[in-house]
Amino acid sequence: MPVSYPRFASRDAAALPTHFYNIKADFPSPPPPPLYPATRRPICPEDLAPVFPRGFIAQETSVERFVPIPDPVLEALAIYRPTPLVYASGLRAALDTSAHIFYKYEGVAPLGSHKSNTALMQAYLAAQEGLETLVTETGAGQWGSALAHAGGRFGVRVKVFMVRVSYRQKPGRRTLMEMFGASVAESPSPLTSAGSAYFAADPDHPGSLGIAISEALETALAGPSSRYALGSVLDAVLMHQTVIGLEAETQLHELGLEPDVVIGCVGGGSNFGGLAFPFVRRRLTEGRSIRFVAVEPDACPSLTRGDLRYDHGDTAGLTPLLYMYTLGKDFVPPPIHAGGLRYHGMAPLVSHLAALKLIEAKAYPTGRVFEAARTFFASEGILPAPESAHAVAAAIDEARVAAAEGRSPVILFNLSGHGFLDIAAYASNGREAKMPVPA
Amino acid sequence: MPVSYPRFASRDAAALPTHFYNIKADFPSPPPPPLYPATRRPICPEDLAPVFPRGFIAQETSVERFVPIPDPVLEALAIYRPTPLVYASGLRAALDTSAHIFYKYEGVAPLGSHKSNTALMQAYLAAQEGLETLVTETGAGQWGSALAHAGGRFGVRVKVFMVRVSYRQKPGRRTLMEMFGASVAESPSPLTSAGSAYFAADPDHPGSLGIAISEALETALAGPSSRYALGSVLDAVLMHQTVIGLEAETQLHELGLEPDVVIGCVGGGSNFGGLAFPFVRRRLTEGRSIRFVAVEPDACPSLTRGDLRYDHGDTAGLTPLLYMYTLGKDFVPPPIHAGGLRYHGMAPLVSHLAALKLIEAKAYPTGRVFEAARTFFASEGILPAPESAHAVAAAIDEARVAAAEGRSPVILFNLSGHGFLDIAAYASNGREAKMPVPA
Repeated sequence: MPVSYPRFASRDAAALPTHFYNIKADFPSPPPPPLYPATRRPICPEDLAPVFPRGFIAQETSVERFVPIPDPVLEALAIYRPTPLVYASGLRAALDTSAHIFYKYEGVAPLGSHKSNTALMQAYLAAQEGLETLVTETGAGQWGSALAHAGGRFGVRVKVFMVRVSYRQKPGRRTLMEMFGASVAESPSPLTSAGSAYFAADPDHPGSLGIAISEALETALAGPSSRYALGSVLDAVLMHQTVIGLEAETQLHELGLEPDVVIGCVGGGSNFGGLAFPFVRRRLTEGRSIRFVAVEPDACPSLTRGDLRYDHGDTAGLTPLLYMYTLGKDFVPPPIHAGGLRYHGMAPLVSHLAALKLIEAKAYPTGRVFEAARTFFASEGILPAPESAHAVAAAIDEARVAAAEGRSPVILFNLSGHGFLDIAAYASNGREAKMPVPA
Repeated sequence: MPVSYPRFASRDAAALPTHFYNIKADFPSPPPPPLYPATRRPICPEDLAPVFPRGFIAQETSVERFVPIPDPVLEALAIYRPTPLVYASGLRAALDTSAHIFYKYEGVAPLGSHKSNTALMQAYLAAQEGLETLVTETGAGQWGSALAHAGGRFGVRVKVFMVRVSYRQKPGRRTLMEMFGASVAESPSPLTSAGSAYFAADPDHPGSLGIAISEALETALAGPSSRYALGSVLDAVLMHQTVIGLEAETQLHELGLEPDVVIGCVGGGSNFGGLAFPFVRRRLTEGRSIRFVAVEPDACPSLTRGDLRYDHGDTAGLTPLLYMYTLGKDFVPPPIHAGGLRYHGMAPLVSHLAALKLIEAKAYPTGRVFEAARTFFASEGILPAPESAHAVAAAIDEARVAAAEGRSPVILFNLSGHGFLDIAAYASNGREAKMPVPA
């Protein structure tokens, strides 16, 4: 194995996949199905018809191994894809490690994170069916701004419920969404029955993704031509994100490499799943000995400390019951800066892999995460989003352990977004993730 | 000519140039040389030895047509280069224009602008000579953060004088610089004789690039192992930026195209020169009829309303006399958000092209610039830096005129940086570019 690699594998258009990868085609056993809450029978596509665009439901329930990406979506993805696969030579030198660290950098997307990968697909499907509005929630605002952009591109109105703590920590994200024509409300809000109880009890309630999902879902169901869009958790959303892993596979292959360890942060699970699933396939179908590490904040430890059981995806109990690792739908995480990871549950597909012991899970405290992000920034020059910084921290630890043991593994992690809107968090080293007072 | 193009030309490593292009080799007449202020004789390389690294002086005075990029710099550039050349299909649809608009997107650089192209080269040259410190100034902070990063990469300490109005408008940029280990002072400061008179008269003086250059230069000259680094204006800096235009030339060539109009914003002139010079060469040596448009803010109109004469590059009069369009070294521009364009002069190489009538100059008011940037953001999804938004505005006007005249020109502009740190300016639509009160 060579001692170093070119900083970049090819970013030729040839690396951009034409199909999503659907891991359900390759599972050794199927995951338990979502249940209709009232009857606890498995949901069927018709149950979802009032909630999601029909095309999305078809993707959510598909078991085809490869699902084609429509041309207008491919064209939109090509604005920023294939994203760079970077050999972290600066970080390697800073750590003085024998490990080879690569990262897939999704921060080159227009809104700065991987969320556009599914936002563009979902907005396209809604537009195809002539739907007027998509309603969604957002934590740190990466998903909300990506959907606002996608809605603008395909002519669909977007309404966003933004978790209050992030709304106040990151007012810039709201500006971005509104510049695309989206409307944005603080959650919990007085606008929905799901939010109004929390709002009445405390108008400064920090909120959570679970509550915001309830508000968005309730609002979507109330409109005649509106549907709901979710930025993570669902099978189809994770499938949309597999463009990340499929590209990385091609890019590493060009270097004659495959990863020994694949790492991603997890909130709902989509950027981890998107990078990992194509490599999980190689482990499942070709027996490759690849390890997978999902990294969560210790303030919201669904995979490491939650229960594997049926639970609602939202706080009000409007969603189907999902079989997943969960801290309970009423869990409200502390207001950490990594707002995108403040979710009580975990994608059923990621939960299934954890239950099958195909992936490992680790929980990191904020202090170690920010320390790792600073090391990465100083050596690579790219400021990670606080969410992505969890993956950075685990990658650094893997590299250190490998060096101590005299090994030179290929470590691949997902740098799912940049932190240009999180500089204030870095200025305080993540310590002051308090609820800001209203302006 | 086809009606549309692929969103992206190749981003293959093959498009990354191995040499800078030096336009001085192709000028029909040489530009007037810099003069030593005391004697008004042309400066010679030895005059510059206390100011710049020796390798930089060699590049500054070179008349070779192609100057090689050292391998360690190429490796560092390859972190983000070649940058995307994007076909602006969204903007084209929004404008309903027959013109074909392409932009070179430098915002994918780690610090978010084209400034890393020269920062990495300058830090490398300083490190090669064992210099300990580079001192510089910065306006909006893009140059300062790029040099802080480059210094970190090559092991050179960086000190930055940041223009006060930007220091207070954009505290995040300071955080970024300090995270790389750089030290940052507000300018005018009480630390130098160049700054202390302004500081004593008004500790809230908004500052200017001219004053900050004086402070940096004075500080660099005072240290035994310190030199000065400048982010624009100088011949060598513009030469470093030609990687932008050389890549664009290759990328357009792959599509069988060449531009009819090339557009860039101008403050000191480096991103405009970087994109334009390789195409100016085609006009000079092959007679191609390409137009070039340099766009400046009407609040700092050196090219459109300045005089062409010898003037100092800084306010205190420490630099050699440069023959350039200038508003006078004592001109202090109003505190517009496009801090990177608040410079009283213009690069001698760009000034020379303007004097030869090879390029056109336009001045835009802030309102039109922000309006254009919002149109671009809504249709392309990328938020321009306020500086780059000047180029966006001119590109949109070119496209509108072309459509009205039934023409379909190929318009190429430089999107020199992203605006993720300028969202507050967008929230106020650029109108509240006041001097913030101290925290």
